[in-house]
Amino acid sequence: MFELDPTFLATSSTLPALALCEARLQLDARFPWIVLIPRVEGAVELEDLSVEERAMLMAEIVVAGEAVRAIGAALGRPIEKLNVGQLGNVTRQLHVHVVGRRQDDPCWPGPVWGQGTPLTYDDNALEVALAAAANALES
Amino acid sequence: MFELDPTFLATSSTLPALALCEARLQLDARFPWIVLIPRVEGAVELEDLSVEERAMLMAEIVVAGEAVRAIGAALGRPIEKLNVGQLGNVTRQLHVHVVGRRQDDPCWPGPVWGQGTPLTYDDNALEVALAAAANALES
Repeated sequence: MFELDPTFLATSSTLPALALCEARLQLDARFPWIVLIPRVEGAVELEDLSVEERAMLMAEIVVAGEAVRAIGAALGRPIEKLNVGQLGNVTRQLHVHVVGRRQDDPCWPGPVWGQGTPLTYDDNALEVALAAAANALES
Repeated sequence: MFELDPTFLATSSTLPALALCEARLQLDARFPWIVLIPRVEGAVELEDLSVEERAMLMAEIVVAGEAVRAIGAALGRPIEKLNVGQLGNVTRQLHVHVVGRRQDDPCWPGPVWGQGTPLTYDDNALEVALAAAANALES
């Protein structure tokens, strides 16, 4: 049975689920950032997915990119580049990061993973981000 | 017309081309590392590919992962985790990194991009890595 790694519960907030993946907003106000976790028990690498699941994941990465753009726009900081990463060096359960980047963000042009300290969303911005993401993921 | 960004020529070496992508060995002996560049003119983000091209790219990422594992095995350093990244903050032409990681590598568990200084392959190791990767990509 698929169970979400508890790490994700501590660092991200629930978004509407997609056909293959759980979608979560990373609780780091430095970047519009969605994490996709395929609901496939025991999956660690992309090769652990079926060919059909891989195609679904790719489609959901593109949708998450649209949602990340929507968050950036809603917060008045339109994103300039998408970054997609599947690492799993720390949390092994297969997951894909979709992150919106700007040249004025604190990690540009480097990667975001493991860099600096997450910034807490204020309540209003969190509400705006969650609503923009949900709207994009459900459309 | 598709033309490879010259940056890739300076930092990586040609591997056998795949159906969608140019495949290149990143010239950094710290990690078995393949870069895939879809031959699609003007593509910057995954959304710039057709649905069919996205499925091809996903398949080629999995094949590149096998090739990265083959390089690690051939060099006596079997890889423990694959890392896949599509960033493009510096070189905008759409490309995907497939990197083999080990807990004893110099960047573990952080990402490799923009971290530390690339390590030159010695001639013999480079030959071994290129042959192992070519064999895996062509099988």
